[in-house]
Amino acid sequence: MHGEIVTTGNELTSGSVQDQNAWYAAGRLTAAGFQVVRITFVGDDFEMLSETLTRALERSRFVIVTGGLGATSDDITNEIAARALNRPLCLDRQMFDRIKSHARKRGMEMTPPLEKMAWTPEGSRMLNPEGSSCGFYLVENRIPLYFLPGVPEEMRNLMDKFVLPDLQERFREAPVMRRRVLKLYGLTEPEIAQRLDDLSGRTGNVLLGFYPRFPENHITLSLRGDDARSVADELSRVEEEIRRRVGGYVFAMGKDTMESVVGRLLSEKGLTLCVAESCTGGFIGHRLTNVAGSSRYFTGGVIVYSNSAKTALLGVRPGTLRAHGAVSDETAREMAQGAREVHDADMALAVTGIAGPEGGTREKPVGTVHLALAAGREVFSGKYRFRGTRDQVKQNASTMALDYIRRYLNGDPFLPGI
Amino acid sequence: MHGEIVTTGNELTSGSVQDQNAWYAAGRLTAAGFQVVRITFVGDDFEMLSETLTRALERSRFVIVTGGLGATSDDITNEIAARALNRPLCLDRQMFDRIKSHARKRGMEMTPPLEKMAWTPEGSRMLNPEGSSCGFYLVENRIPLYFLPGVPEEMRNLMDKFVLPDLQERFREAPVMRRRVLKLYGLTEPEIAQRLDDLSGRTGNVLLGFYPRFPENHITLSLRGDDARSVADELSRVEEEIRRRVGGYVFAMGKDTMESVVGRLLSEKGLTLCVAESCTGGFIGHRLTNVAGSSRYFTGGVIVYSNSAKTALLGVRPGTLRAHGAVSDETAREMAQGAREVHDADMALAVTGIAGPEGGTREKPVGTVHLALAAGREVFSGKYRFRGTRDQVKQNASTMALDYIRRYLNGDPFLPGI
Repeated sequence: MHGEIVTTGNELTSGSVQDQNAWYAAGRLTAAGFQVVRITFVGDDFEMLSETLTRALERSRFVIVTGGLGATSDDITNEIAARALNRPLCLDRQMFDRIKSHARKRGMEMTPPLEKMAWTPEGSRMLNPEGSSCGFYLVENRIPLYFLPGVPEEMRNLMDKFVLPDLQERFREAPVMRRRVLKLYGLTEPEIAQRLDDLSGRTGNVLLGFYPRFPENHITLSLRGDDARSVADELSRVEEEIRRRVGGYVFAMGKDTMESVVGRLLSEKGLTLCVAESCTGGFIGHRLTNVAGSSRYFTGGVIVYSNSAKTALLGVRPGTLRAHGAVSDETAREMAQGAREVHDADMALAVTGIAGPEGGTREKPVGTVHLALAAGREVFSGKYRFRGTRDQVKQNASTMALDYIRRYLNGDPFLPGI
Repeated sequence: MHGEIVTTGNELTSGSVQDQNAWYAAGRLTAAGFQVVRITFVGDDFEMLSETLTRALERSRFVIVTGGLGATSDDITNEIAARALNRPLCLDRQMFDRIKSHARKRGMEMTPPLEKMAWTPEGSRMLNPEGSSCGFYLVENRIPLYFLPGVPEEMRNLMDKFVLPDLQERFREAPVMRRRVLKLYGLTEPEIAQRLDDLSGRTGNVLLGFYPRFPENHITLSLRGDDARSVADELSRVEEEIRRRVGGYVFAMGKDTMESVVGRLLSEKGLTLCVAESCTGGFIGHRLTNVAGSSRYFTGGVIVYSNSAKTALLGVRPGTLRAHGAVSDETAREMAQGAREVHDADMALAVTGIAGPEGGTREKPVGTVHLALAAGREVFSGKYRFRGTRDQVKQNASTMALDYIRRYLNGDPFLPGI
C-alpha cells in the first residue's frame, strides 16, 4: 500500500516557498494506513518531472502529483505529464465549462491561459466535477495518478474528499496504522534520550520517533497491524513505559497544543485568565485566542513595553522599578497583580524579559525572562534564561508562561528556574 | 552547477513534521548561484535512501544529505550511506573525542549510542572540527556529498559556514543568479494574473513566479547571467513593468515583512504607535514586536475581549456599545482614541471583529472586522469581511490593520472596505 508524492514548482527547489502540500498529503495518507515511501520536489522542468514520474510508476502502487495546474505561465504539469506518459493532451469539456462559469461569476472572460487548464492527458477524469478547482486523475498500468492543484486549500479539499476515499476503495485490504504523539516541554533531546535509554527491547514492534519542535520535543509511537484493538493496546503499553520515564514533561497529545490544554483546564475549573506581557509583546494573548471559544475564559491583556506603561496601566510602583529593574521577579509579580485587578480575572500571568538582540547587560543578558502567576491568594514567580534569537526567546517565554498555568491547575510543581 | 538535496526521516514521509532543512538549504544554494534540481525525502529505509543516493550521484554535481546523524535508534544515515557507497564504517577519532568532551561538559558519560555518531563511511572528513555538531563530507567520483544533522540550527550553521564556502571553492565558475520578491497585499491571485496578462513578451529571460502566501501574494523575478550588473539591470526593467500594473499593492520586497516596513516608516517619521486588539487577541502586538528594536516606536497595547474591558480600559462608552455593538466602526474608533490616551502614543490602531467559528449573526457574520486608526487629529475606520478559519481571519485582520498604518504614513489611500 505504498505510494509516492511528487510536488512540482521552482518555488520549492529554489527554497523560496516552504512546502505545505506534500506535508499535508503525507500526514493524511499515513493516518489512513498508507505508506509514503518517497516525496520528491522537482522544478518546472520536463526531464526531471518526467523521470521522477516514470520511476515512481515503477515501484509504487499510487502516485500523487501536486502543483502546476493553474493558469499562469509556469503551470506546465498537464503538458509534462502528457509527454511523460506518452498521451496526447485533450480538452476536457466538463472542466472547460466549469472554468468558464466560474470565471463568469467573478466577472471574467474565458482566456487562453484559463482554457489551458482544461487540456489534460488523454483518459483523465476530473476529481471534483462540482467544485471550482482543477484536479484530475488517470490510471496508468493499474496505478492511479492523482493531479492536484498547488493552492493549499484546494489541494487539501480534493485530497480529503476524493483522493483518500478513492484510494481506500481501490486498496480495501489496507492494514490498520495508528500513531500517537506525546508533546514534551522542559527536557532537551539528549535528556529525553538518556531517560529512555533503557527502553529498547520493551517497545516490541512499535516504532519510536523523536522530533524537536522548538521549543517542544515530540515523541511519536507508530504501529501497523491487522486489527485496531490490538494495535491500540500495544501502543498504550509502550506509551505507559514512556510516561513512566518522562511523564511529568508531557503536556499534550496528538493535535492538542499548550494553549488548547490550558484552555480546557480553565474551562473545566470555571476560571478566567488575563495576561500582562512585556517581552512577548502580545504573543501569549495571540496563542490563547487561537483556541476557538477562548473568550469564555480569557478576559484580555495588557502589552506594556515601557516602564511608564507598567506603572500607569498596571500600577507597578516606580520604587520597584528603580530598585529591581523592569526585568525582575518583583516587577513581574506587581504586573500580574495589577493585571488581575484591571482585567477582573481569577488569574493573571505576567512576563517581563529581554528578547534581544539588544538590551542585554552582564547581570541580565539577552534571554533573561521573569514570569509571575497571580492565582488565588498567591503569586508565584520564577526567573529563566532562554537561548537563541528574539523569536526563539519569545517562543520559549510564552510556552513556559502557559506551562505555568497548566502546572498550577494540575497541581504539579513549576519547572525550576535559575 | 546543479545538485540535489536528500532529506531522511520517517517523520517527513509520514507527514508528522514539516520540512525546514531542505527548504533552508535550497534557498541558500539558490541565492549563491547554484541550482537545486530535485529535493527528495525518504524514510529511514536502506533501499530508498540507497537508490536515491545512487541516482543523485549519476546526474548531479553535488549532493546534500540531511538528517539521521544523531544518537537515537532511528538515526541510521551513516550506516546506510556506507552501504550505499560500498565503503566500510570507520571510527572518526576526532569526532569521537569531540562528542566525548561535549558529553562531559553536560555531565554525561560516553555511551554506545553517542559513539555510533562517530562511525562514518571511510574517507569522510568532519565538517566542523571545532563545533559541537556531527556533520561530515566525502567525495565520490569527484562529486562532493555533504552529510548534515537534522537539527535545524546545527544544519543551518554547517550549511552557511562550511558547505556553501566549500561548494563555491569547488565550482568557482558559478554564474550569477539573482532573485527579487515583490510582496503584495489586497489583490487575489486571479486579479494579479489579469493585471499582468499583457506582460508576456516583455519579460525577456526573467522567470516569473506567483506564490500565494496567505494572506499575501508574492511575485518572484529570477534571472541567471554572467555578470551581476546586467542581471540587475534586466531585473529592474521587468520589476518596473510589474509595478506599473500592481505597484500600489506592493508593500515590501525581499526579506522585508509588513511589520518591518511599518516599523521603518514609524522610525523614519519619529512616531510612536499603540494597539487595541479584540479579535486579533495580541497578534498585532506580537507581529510588531517581532521586529528587533520595536520598543523605540511601539509603546504597548491593550487586549480587550469583553465589553466591560473595552469600557473600563479604553473608555468606550456603554451607549456606543449598546447602539452599535462591540463589532462596529463606532466602537473601533473609540477603542483607538482610548488606547492612544492610555498608552500615550502618537497613533493608535484598533481592531474589533468576529474571528469565529462561533459568534456570527446574519448582520455580522464570522469574518466581519472593523479597523480604526487614530492619527493626528483624525480617526480613520473601515469595515472588512474576511473568509476562512479563525486563524485566517486573524491573519487577514492583522495584515489589513498593519497595512492601514503603512498606507497612512505613505500618504496612500486605504484599501476599500465593505
